[in-house]
Formats: sequence, C-alpha cells, structure tokens
Amino acid sequence: MSYEAPLGEIAFLLRTLTPLASVCALPSCAHTDADMIHAVIEQAAKVARDIAAPLNAVSDREGARLENGRVTTPPGFPKAYAQLAADGWTSLAAPLEHGGQALPQLVNTIVAELFSGACVAFQMALLTGSPAAKVIAAHASQELKNLWLPQLADGSSTATIVITEPQAGSDVGLVRTRAQRREDGTYGLTGTKIFISQGDHDLAEQILHVVIARTPEGAPGSRGLSLFLVPKRLLDNEGRPGAANGVRAARLEHKMGLKGSPTCEMVFEDATGYLVGKEGEGLRNLFAMMNAMRLDVGAQSVGVASAALRKALLYVHDRRQGGADADGKPVPIVRHPDVRRTLMAMRVWTDGMRALLYTAAWHEDMAQGLTDREAAARSMHLVGWLLPLIKAGASEAASTVASQAIQLHGGHGYVSDHGVEQYARDARVFAIYEGANAIQANDLVMRKLTRAEGETFRHFAALIRADIEAAAGDGRLVEMTAALTHSLEALEQASAYMLARPASADAHAGAPIYMQLAINVAVGWMWLKMASAERESPDADLRALHARFFAAHVLVDSDALARRAMLGAALLDEAAPERLVAW
Amino acid sequence: MSYEAPLGEIAFLLRTLTPLASVCALPSCAHTDADMIHAVIEQAAKVARDIAAPLNAVSDREGARLENGRVTTPPGFPKAYAQLAADGWTSLAAPLEHGGQALPQLVNTIVAELFSGACVAFQMALLTGSPAAKVIAAHASQELKNLWLPQLADGSSTATIVITEPQAGSDVGLVRTRAQRREDGTYGLTGTKIFISQGDHDLAEQILHVVIARTPEGAPGSRGLSLFLVPKRLLDNEGRPGAANGVRAARLEHKMGLKGSPTCEMVFEDATGYLVGKEGEGLRNLFAMMNAMRLDVGAQSVGVASAALRKALLYVHDRRQGGADADGKPVPIVRHPDVRRTLMAMRVWTDGMRALLYTAAWHEDMAQGLTDREAAARSMHLVGWLLPLIKAGASEAASTVASQAIQLHGGHGYVSDHGVEQYARDARVFAIYEGANAIQANDLVMRKLTRAEGETFRHFAALIRADIEAAAGDGRLVEMTAALTHSLEALEQASAYMLARPASADAHAGAPIYMQLAINVAVGWMWLKMASAERESPDADLRALHARFFAAHVLVDSDALARRAMLGAALLDEAAPERLVAW
Repeated sequence: MSYEAPLGEIAFLLRTLTPLASVCALPSCAHTDADMIHAVIEQAAKVARDIAAPLNAVSDREGARLENGRVTTPPGFPKAYAQLAADGWTSLAAPLEHGGQALPQLVNTIVAELFSGACVAFQMALLTGSPAAKVIAAHASQELKNLWLPQLADGSSTATIVITEPQAGSDVGLVRTRAQRREDGTYGLTGTKIFISQGDHDLAEQILHVVIARTPEGAPGSRGLSLFLVPKRLLDNEGRPGAANGVRAARLEHKMGLKGSPTCEMVFEDATGYLVGKEGEGLRNLFAMMNAMRLDVGAQSVGVASAALRKALLYVHDRRQGGADADGKPVPIVRHPDVRRTLMAMRVWTDGMRALLYTAAWHEDMAQGLTDREAAARSMHLVGWLLPLIKAGASEAASTVASQAIQLHGGHGYVSDHGVEQYARDARVFAIYEGANAIQANDLVMRKLTRAEGETFRHFAALIRADIEAAAGDGRLVEMTAALTHSLEALEQASAYMLARPASADAHAGAPIYMQLAINVAVGWMWLKMASAERESPDADLRALHARFFAAHVLVDSDALARRAMLGAALLDEAAPERLVAW
Repeated sequence: MSYEAPLGEIAFLLRTLTPLASVCALPSCAHTDADMIHAVIEQAAKVARDIAAPLNAVSDREGARLENGRVTTPPGFPKAYAQLAADGWTSLAAPLEHGGQALPQLVNTIVAELFSGACVAFQMALLTGSPAAKVIAAHASQELKNLWLPQLADGSSTATIVITEPQAGSDVGLVRTRAQRREDGTYGLTGTKIFISQGDHDLAEQILHVVIARTPEGAPGSRGLSLFLVPKRLLDNEGRPGAANGVRAARLEHKMGLKGSPTCEMVFEDATGYLVGKEGEGLRNLFAMMNAMRLDVGAQSVGVASAALRKALLYVHDRRQGGADADGKPVPIVRHPDVRRTLMAMRVWTDGMRALLYTAAWHEDMAQGLTDREAAARSMHLVGWLLPLIKAGASEAASTVASQAIQLHGGHGYVSDHGVEQYARDARVFAIYEGANAIQANDLVMRKLTRAEGETFRHFAALIRADIEAAAGDGRLVEMTAALTHSLEALEQASAYMLARPASADAHAGAPIYMQLAINVAVGWMWLKMASAERESPDADLRALHARFFAAHVLVDSDALARRAMLGAALLDEAAPERLVAW
C-alpha cells in the first residue's frame, strides 16, 4: 500500500498554529534547531513511505504468531525494526544523557503520525519505548534510569504497559496481580495480564514490562497499586539480557485488526520486578505514561485517517461512474456533489484533528520547556483538557473517515485488495485502548472540567474568543465565527450544568455527549485558526471553504448536543438495569 | 455463537403494527393461516439457533475457497443447506403451482431476519432463490417458469444476480457483457462480471445466473440492456443438470466480512442464456428482483443488529467494572447510566428498523393481495418510498449497533472470541451492495419523492399525522408527539425544497442528508406506533421510554438535518474537483 506523508499540511501547521520556531526557542531545545527538525520529518516521511508502508498489507495478512511459546512478528518486521533502531528512530524522545535525541514532543507526535499512516502495527512496535522512558525518567531511581533509558533509546529493548487483567479493564482498582517484596529489595510478581501490546516479539532481545501490581500491605482499590519494571530477561553482571525472567506470553489474541501487532496474555510467575517510585503510587506515577500514550493514539488516529483520505482522493479522480464527460465517457466520481461532500467531511476531521493534536503536543513542549512557570502551568492544564478530546475525537474520526473511504470505493472498498477496509479494522481499537472513550468522557467532565472550578475550560474558551475576535471583519469567515460563537456558548451552558452537578449520575449520563460538543468546538476552533492563517496563500481560500463546511455540517448540531448533554439521568434511571435484558 | 430470535418482539408486531390477521385475510393467502405462519416462524427460530448459528464462527474463520476452479463453502454449510432445503426453507416464497409454499412477504422477511442474525453468510446461500423466482414469475416465458421455479423452490438450484462489471458499478448503463442471439433463439453471453455473491459453491449442483447483458443492436446506456437466465450447467433432455455451460468462477474476493459467502468474479465465454422478457427491458424487468433484494438487505441488517444487541445485553449484566455493589463487589456495567444510554440507542434503531421493515413487507403483501386496486396501489407506492429508507437506514443502523456492541465489550469486543467484531465486519457491506446508500438517496429524492408531484410523500406524512392525532392525550408521549410533529414539518420543508429543484445539483448535494431526516422521521413514527399499541401490556411503559429516548436523542437533530439538506451545492461547487486532490 502506497503512503505519502502530508508534508505540505505539516509544514503549514509548523509555520502557523503550532510554530516550530517557538519550540526551538525554548532553552530545553538548545541542542536542536528548525532545520534539523525539518530534516527529521522529511526523513521520517521517506522511511514511512519506503520501509513501513510496504509492511502494512503483509502485517494484516500474516499477523503475529505464537508458536512454542515464542511470538514472531510478520515477515519484514524484524529487519525493518533493526534498521530503524540503528538509524535512531527509537531514540527521538529519549534524554540526551542516555543516548537520546531529546527532540520535542511535537516532532515525536509528527513522526508517530507518519509511521502510523504507513503501518500502524509497525509503529506500535517501533515507538513503545518513549512513553515508558517518560515514566522511568520521571519516577525511577537513578540506577534504573542509567540501566534502562539507554536500552530503550537504542531500541535494544522495547517496552510494554501492563495494566489490564481479565476482571480489571476500565476499573484498574480491581487489579489482583501480586508483588511480594523480597529481602534483596526486588519484588516477585505473580498474576495474569491481558491485552498486552508487544508483550512478546522477535524484534529485540529484551522487553521491559512496566507493570501495575498490588503489594500485600497496600490499601484496597487503586491506592494499593504500585509500579514495577519487569524485564523479559534478567540482566547479567554486565547489564546484558541473560536468563529468562518469570514472565511469558501464554496466548495471542486474534483481533479485528492491528494483526501485525502481537496482543498477548502475559503470565507472571514470581517474576523479578523493580519498584518505580513509592509503593501505592503506581497509578499516579503511571500518569505521564498514560498521557503520552493517549496523545500517541491521537497520532495513530490522524495517521490512519490521513492515509485513508489520501487513498480516497486518489480513487475518486480515477474511478468513472455516472454522468457524461465532454468525450461522452462517464465522469470521475469526484464530479458528483455528494462525493465531494464526503471528501470535505473526511478532510475537516482529518486535518482538524491533526491541528488539535499538534496543538496539544506544542503546549506539552511549552509546559515542559517554558521558564515562565505560570505560562507553563497554563499550557500543562490546556494539554490535560485537550487530551481526552483528542483521544476520543481522533479515534472516532479515524473510524468514520476509514468507513467513508470504504463507502467511496464501493465494493472495491469492502474487498482487501485496495487495503481500505484494513484501515477501518485497524482504527477500530483506537476508541477502545488506552482508556475507552467513555472513560475519556468521565476524565473530561469529572476531572479536567472541574479542576479549579472550571479554570482550564475558561482559559480554553478565552483563547477561542480571542481568535474569533481576531477574525472579525474577514468576510470569508462570517458563518464560521457566528457558528463557533454560538457553539461555544452552548458548550459554556453545558459546562455550567456539569460543574453544578459534580460526579452526579446526571453528569455521567451526559458526559460522552458533552465531550462530543467539546470536540466539535475544539476542531471548529482549529478550522477558524487554519482559515485565518496565511490569507495570501493559494490554499487559504480552500481552508476557508472547509471552515465554512465545518460550521454548516458539524457546528450546526451544537444546540442539539447541548440539549442532549443536559438531559440528565432521569430517563435512563427509569430504564432500570432489570428492564434492559436480553430476550 | 449463540443466537436467540426476538420472538416476543416479532409477535408484538404481528399483533399490532403489521397485523398478521390482515395478511391472512387476503384472498391470495387462502392456502395458509396464522397458526401455520406462527409455527413457521417458531421453527425458523429453532433452525436459526440450532443449525445456522453454529456455522457463524467457522464461516468467518474458514471462509469460502476457490481451488482448481471449484468453490467450496465453509465446513458444515453443504450439510446444513441440504437439510434446510429438504425441510422446505428454500420454498417459502415460491408459487404453489411450482412446489412452493407461497407464504406472504412478511413471513419471508421475518425468516430472512432470523437466519441473518444467526449466520448471515449462510442466509445468503439459503435464500438466493426467492428474488430470482420473483423476476422469473413476473417476466419469463411459461416454459422457463416451468423449468426453473420448481428447482429454485426445492433448492436443487440456487440463483445469483449478475450485474456489476469492473467498469460498471453504481452506473449499470456501462455494462459491456455481450449477448449474441443465436439461430435457436438462445443467446451466447461473453464478458466478465464481478462481486457475484454465491457465483459458485458446493451447495447445489445447479446455479441459475440472472444476468444483465447487452445485445449488439441495443441502444447505448441502460436501455440497451436485457435480462438472461444462464444456468451453470446446461440441462439434459430430462431437465437435469448436464454439461458445463460457458461460465466459471475465475476469482474469489477476500473480503472484510461475510467470508463464508463466496463473492466471485464470473467469466462468461459464449455461455448459453435464455432471454427473460423483451430485449432492452432488462433493467426494468430486474426491478422486482432488486426491490426484493433491498428489502432482504433490510432483513439482514435487522438480523445482525438484533444479534449484536442481544450479545451486548447479555454482556453488560455479566461484566462487572466500577462502582460498588451492596456486597462491595464492582457493579454490572449495565448500572452505569452511559451504558444504558448506549443500550437504548442500540434498541431504538434495532427495534425501530424492524418495525419499519415489517411495515414495508406488510404493505408489499397488501400491494400484491388487496382486491381494492387503489388501496393496493397506495401500498405499492408506500413500499417504494420506504425501501430506500430501509435499505440505507437499516444498513447504517446495523454497522452502528455492531460498533456500539464492540465498544460495550471493550477490548473483549475487538478480539474475535466473543464474535462481536464479526458482526461489524459482516454488516459493513450492507451499506454498499444492492445499491450503495448514496444511490438509495438518489432513488428516494429523484424518483420516489417526485412521483406524482410528491403524492407518496404526502400519503406518508398523512399516515404519521393520523397516528400523532390518535396519540394526543397520552401523557407518556407528549415529548414524542411534539418532536415528531416538528420533525415531520422539517421534512416537509426539505421535501418542498427538493421538489422545487428536480434532478438539480442542489438536490443531489442534499439527498443523503434529506434521506437521513426521512429515516429518522420514519423510525420515530414506528416508535410512536409501538408506544401507542397495547398500552395495558407490561412492556408498554418501556416502549414509551424508548420513544421518548428517540425523540430526545435522535429527533432533536431534525432542524439541523433539514438545514443541511437545503444547503444546496454552492459550497461544494466552490470545492471543485481539481482542488480536492491527494498530496
């Protein structure tokens, strides 16, 4: 399957909404510069096209396999992984002092998007290390940092995040895996974990499992959970992978998509683990890693949506059906208004979500790098607010855009040859893993919105209002500014409703719908910004058209969404559990 | 995968919205009665559960195969097919005089729904004959009728519908397959056809291909197309399958789902065909068959949606996550308001679409059986209006409901074990085949709506208004009647807009959105009727709750949909084809 990165769109964003110059001006980025970063992105585009994209079909067809207790990845994966690790693609985010390149989050997000668009199963294999490195850098002892960060950077070890158990999915507090402290200070972990991406594979000798487990003395629920590093192979005296640790892949899931990425049931039998941070602070310490992985799901989603959109754009100019051209032949289907409506719907979500994703990554860099502490904190809170919108919104958008690409291909979209249906199957998990979207809605409404009595939300709204005011007088954007103003007011009303009912059944009932409204407003904001930028460019008019389209076809729903978000739980309470039963 | 038919819901509909008594009172139904029909439905439920459902997982896992020019169906299919054909399941619709049972369309639709819910790939194999029999009965010579209808009835021959070619998908007028008249009155057909469901298989010795092809003297475009019967094997002197005809499966598609149903590329090389009807009237004569198959897609969609809903209902009572029960254990997830909201959304579409499907089937029986010609014609036109709403609306609903079932299962929905993700993959084709949903929108707006200057639509609106008036004073339905009244007005406004712009770019641009509004109004109407029926029943209150839910969460969009439907093509014309290009 061919893949081309949307380099023009990326460059536009790096000049305008999320200026690379501001990132490079951070003291923390003194070791790099814009030229180098542009070179990294261009090279990533080539690698994605030439090395990752050719793996995508075989990844789906052959899948990962578990034979004789060993997991093998699809043909071509090990070679490509070795080459890309050698070329430094696993070390982009890692700290300089541990052999990494310490490139900004914005760059890492872009690279993740590109590899995901080319082959998301391979991207999952390649980029496991950096979220793990984040949590190690933040919370592990210096000894553990010195030991593991270089291995994650050079790709000689990959990493996993090991949380879920059969009885503990969205409800992490139900985790049972036990961690028994030993006399030497290590822990023995025993239990069964499921849905572990890259739990075993043949890409690197070492795998570092980042595991949530329960200490015997710990409190019940999530406060009794601690975080451990559990290597697949114990280290010998020179720090190299030695004897097997007590952890193994017992089972491989057969999945709807992402077949090239092994999803394992992992059994821990008195496996040696090393505590990260303090006992009982496992979930809190995992926070940075979970945030990084949620941002990564956004990058995966935008990558797949973008690849599906490109394929559809190629097809609609090639496929001729209906009408009559000047030469009497049927017309390319892009000439049909309804096809163009579908393409514009695909683009407003794909490019709008990319802008939102980069905005979050850019603010993450500001949060980490700004010396002005107040400004850094504002950026940090804005990232926290945007993350659930991106994780849930981009994952939904990826599924929708992939499905629209199938529909534009007709029967050719349903068969495997064009590779379009694979996008839909691969993308379907994005709404599920790293916190199912309903969990994102709860996070948004119960935590992010309520923080400091709505302060972050008011900041978000003020930023949008400022951009609306700046766009006043732009005749191209009259409908857009009006619709966005109205939608923001609807969201403010719904926010007030939620803030007045913290943690209530009413708030829970409406949270996913509130989130959808917030997603629409956030993406509408992006389109206002994109249409307002570089007005002299030849692309400006087309951006303004897409902004108008977003207002007319998406923001038009804001009143209805606000009403639905504020319906409360009364009707749902009448539909009591015992009445909603199977026949 | 377990399957249970929703017999309670079916019985409710047969008592209320689509009374079986009225069907049995038709002169054309003198040979049957309600008891017999209820027995057929109950038996179909058993067969679906005990014979078809056990095939569903293996159907997906093994799929159909093409080896040495022969197609084999998944293990278990041939035996089940033989048994069900012997038990009369292929003859339900066939005329009495040709060995059939001549059961009403309503019954055939119910049986199709049940088998589809159990294993849609098997349903496709079992029920191919009845749409073909329709076109033969209506248009073929007596000789062809006598020859083929008994074979289709007893299942010794299955049938296909053979239209699509690589260059001719939605645009049937581009068909190139040639039919050359021979001296003996038969035709020699030559060409390549694609996406032919059940094009070859090992279930029956004979396959009757119903083929659209072009005669050399025919007009260009669709008016030059004729309809032919092309048997897989030529008949010997006793009418039994003899020598091979010049038609073969050259290729089998690898598809996203429906893997147990062979989708073939068929090559015709001077294959012997028999003209049905007159030359040049092929598409017109195929009409009855295409309508039957679109209704069948509605039955498939409702079947799969219903199976996915049932699986979700079972899971949410079993799966415990979050909260704390009286015994301190986490609560079944059905206790979370958002889960119940999702379940209710699944049910309003599943049961609402079933009601609409049965309504169309019931009116089809009236159209065929009423002696009052005017009433019969009104029913016929109403069916014509409802068909695109059902084909497009039910197919979208099936995909959405299956996806919601996945989401409720979390990671367990994305893996194959529960069989939930298969529903989503199987269902995805419903929006594509038998006329892609955008084609349905054009059919609705350009043909069904414009007929007699909107007469059918006005009849549809009058039926709804009468039911709204009849519900006045029912306190449970105040919100529903208000929302439906308002939505109907919005639809009337959009209809006037479309009628004022026949076949325009504006109408094309808005047609799919207009169709969505019409679908919502039609399903809302069904919920009003369902909630109004049997008010003393213990289920009545739950039906009223679902009606309120539909008003609050679906009909609330009507204003926005109407506005979008009436936007016109101006913005899409500005987004000209040459501006919507791949990077």
